[in-house]
Amino acid sequence: MNKSFIRYVVGHVISFEGVFLVLTSIVGILYKESEFLPYLICGILYLIFGLYNRKNKPESNVFYATEGFVIVALSWIFLSLLGAIPFVVTGEIPNFLDALFEVVSGFTTTGSTIMNDPESLSHVSAFWRVFTHWIGGMGILVFVLAILPMAGGYAIHILKAESPGPSVGKLVSKLSTTAKILYAIYFGITCLEVISLLICKLPLFDSICISFATAGTGGLGLLNDGFLSYSNSVQIVTAIFMMLFGINFNIYYFILIGKGKEALKSEELKCYLGIIIVATLLIAINTVGYYTSAFETLKHSFFQVSSIITTTGFASTNFDLWPTFSKVIIIALMFIGAMAGSTGGGIKVSRIMILLKDIKQNILHYVSPRRVYLVRFENKRVDDESLNSIKSYLVVYVAVFVASLLIISLDKFNFTESFTAVVATLNNIGPGLERIGPLGNFAEFSPLSKIVLIFDMITGRLEILPMLVLFLPLIKTVSKKLDR
Amino acid sequence: MNKSFIRYVVGHVISFEGVFLVLTSIVGILYKESEFLPYLICGILYLIFGLYNRKNKPESNVFYATEGFVIVALSWIFLSLLGAIPFVVTGEIPNFLDALFEVVSGFTTTGSTIMNDPESLSHVSAFWRVFTHWIGGMGILVFVLAILPMAGGYAIHILKAESPGPSVGKLVSKLSTTAKILYAIYFGITCLEVISLLICKLPLFDSICISFATAGTGGLGLLNDGFLSYSNSVQIVTAIFMMLFGINFNIYYFILIGKGKEALKSEELKCYLGIIIVATLLIAINTVGYYTSAFETLKHSFFQVSSIITTTGFASTNFDLWPTFSKVIIIALMFIGAMAGSTGGGIKVSRIMILLKDIKQNILHYVSPRRVYLVRFENKRVDDESLNSIKSYLVVYVAVFVASLLIISLDKFNFTESFTAVVATLNNIGPGLERIGPLGNFAEFSPLSKIVLIFDMITGRLEILPMLVLFLPLIKTVSKKLDR
Repeated sequence: MNKSFIRYVVGHVISFEGVFLVLTSIVGILYKESEFLPYLICGILYLIFGLYNRKNKPESNVFYATEGFVIVALSWIFLSLLGAIPFVVTGEIPNFLDALFEVVSGFTTTGSTIMNDPESLSHVSAFWRVFTHWIGGMGILVFVLAILPMAGGYAIHILKAESPGPSVGKLVSKLSTTAKILYAIYFGITCLEVISLLICKLPLFDSICISFATAGTGGLGLLNDGFLSYSNSVQIVTAIFMMLFGINFNIYYFILIGKGKEALKSEELKCYLGIIIVATLLIAINTVGYYTSAFETLKHSFFQVSSIITTTGFASTNFDLWPTFSKVIIIALMFIGAMAGSTGGGIKVSRIMILLKDIKQNILHYVSPRRVYLVRFENKRVDDESLNSIKSYLVVYVAVFVASLLIISLDKFNFTESFTAVVATLNNIGPGLERIGPLGNFAEFSPLSKIVLIFDMITGRLEILPMLVLFLPLIKTVSKKLDR
Repeated sequence: MNKSFIRYVVGHVISFEGVFLVLTSIVGILYKESEFLPYLICGILYLIFGLYNRKNKPESNVFYATEGFVIVALSWIFLSLLGAIPFVVTGEIPNFLDALFEVVSGFTTTGSTIMNDPESLSHVSAFWRVFTHWIGGMGILVFVLAILPMAGGYAIHILKAESPGPSVGKLVSKLSTTAKILYAIYFGITCLEVISLLICKLPLFDSICISFATAGTGGLGLLNDGFLSYSNSVQIVTAIFMMLFGINFNIYYFILIGKGKEALKSEELKCYLGIIIVATLLIAINTVGYYTSAFETLKHSFFQVSSIITTTGFASTNFDLWPTFSKVIIIALMFIGAMAGSTGGGIKVSRIMILLKDIKQNILHYVSPRRVYLVRFENKRVDDESLNSIKSYLVVYVAVFVASLLIISLDKFNFTESFTAVVATLNNIGPGLERIGPLGNFAEFSPLSKIVLIFDMITGRLEILPMLVLFLPLIKTVSKKLDR
């Protein structure tokens, strides 16, 4: 393990968090809130600490996938631990574990909250809460790579570890250019949403905050009732932008360079949009009579589908009151998730598609064993190694899911609540059902449950492997003991 | 497709069902119940019909795995459709779909019921209800193979399609001998249980019925309150026998031929027993205070764990009232299931073990890519094809699960009920939670839901592939339309 290198990169990450906190403190200064001070001080301290750690150039450039995983996992853990401190110092979330839960929920773009009353937050803290969504959405290390083009081929390991999924690759030959392009698209669409929301007569502060939370497919909001009290136009604009942020960013890149026609042929895109249309219609039909008009029914149906499949987690209505069929669709969408290469979480549409195609091939193979076993996706053959890694991903996913559910269920919540708490955090959605539904929150969970849910949020955001690699020594020790 | 051959074998199966029904009618004659007549008449009719179809020897002996799957799937469907008729004719379950649900629950050894009042059944119908468990437990086609040694290598296809799981193989060189040995062990342990229950002062009829339901890991019982009102000794004896029927029958065979020491080294056996001990202790600790004494707590905990992991589904207590943690353990056990090669259902301990070992290898491989990727199980290397087929099984399993849950959730049940209804039927357990819990039943489900649950029970019992192969033409048509 190349420790000096890991320290060097994590140092970068911490110094950038410092910069972000200093930027955040400006919001407090503008609103003349005394809470700006902890943000400014923490920001400066992290900046100094990070720069100090960056000062020592790594002794060696030897670098493998392991280091990539460890760097990403450690960066996210430090980012969260340090990012929680201002909440505690301002006294707005006095309990450190709660503050950590909130900031992890932010960075991982989950959107689950432990706050009963987010409206009571100062502007600076409310801003930091959603700014973390924006930072975490595209990935902090992608940001570091975009700003600091480092030499060597190791950057791809970091990029892959932080933005996993079957379709992430290089857009252009230089990785730092890829990272810059991704961030430019991200920034561009975010600005578009801010402008659209301003046109809907939303104040600037609210427009920026909602856009940050949408862009990262986060889900933390400003109001206690989520999106219930926003106007129709704000709800519809947000629903559309949520859907847009669930699309693979490569497609935007290809549209920008004039290859739009090809990009729109993407199987995954068609499937993603198809699922959204079908789910919206099914829920709308199933909830006839729940709303006063067909427009309202369709609007709420589309908003929730767009919010959940992209793993954002905003709610324009309390879907916990919907009939069971609609709730099961919502839970199914939670697992499916957005497109690979987007800011959304979940299992990802492409993985689901490849798995379903594999099932078909499998059955055909059983029936006629001499048939060629061929899974095609986006007009390319999916090789055995990719297939195997997707299946393994699913198996690990299920294992983490079951283990988490077992621990969570020790708490005083019922099965539906425990189950959806794990679904909502591991897939980075936000709300679950019943007491943790759109109008509920996670405050009542025990410290142990909160630690597990924090672990699930980070594990889900990084698609499991980096966290498992980090805990590998532990896994090895335990499995050795079990083998005896 | 070799249709004449399929017809020939299915004819055998139907004639054997005739024999079983004639045997069942004797119970009615002994108890002087008029309900014996429908059983006798149906039995004779099926026997004649089956013999007629057997008369025409198949035109060709060309036989592949497809035929094996189709034969098994069709046999089980005919067995169920025909087996439901006596319930309807006696008027005890007048609705055909309900009767079909009950008899499918019987043959697939699920144990879910639509009856509010099983005590109201005549002896002959009560006997048929659990006799189906005993027939279905080991498999009707295994029985046919045991009685009628047919020439040709096709028997292995049938055996594998009906009794799947990673560890099914030939015990001796001749398959019909293997089938005979399996049935002899099955019969022997069943007799042991009958004798043990007689010693516990249970009447002969009850002892036989409970033993049949235990042997097949079924779960349908005689009393309205399941096992709640039986004596301690009856509960403990049944719990032990449930556990015994969840063990791979190969292990009994090896013990019989004096190779017990080797057989007991089985990794899967150790893991199976380990899970039972750990789950029993965890639930016992979690339910302290629910029962009057430590003995009662341990007894109920062991009974439920043994019942659920073997997918039997008897209940000595209403575990729906247990805390969430215990309920989640129960649900986890439902998925895990018994050992491969036993009469139990579920995913199977061996599959879970291999998947977990694969996860470990996978992580190690990510960390050091040049490491040899080697999954060992029972001291043998698991080859890539087996690994792949287990993962594919899990993927298909999840797909069937989600599709079923979506349809079931259209019904008027809540999420926990809909979810556990699918878990309980697809894994051939029996009861779920809340309204379909140990003291509830499946009567209130809509006809559509019942059809889906019937499909799930058969699909679960045959481990998915036979049913999928049978519906392959349909799948092909649909997927072609979707491809357009």
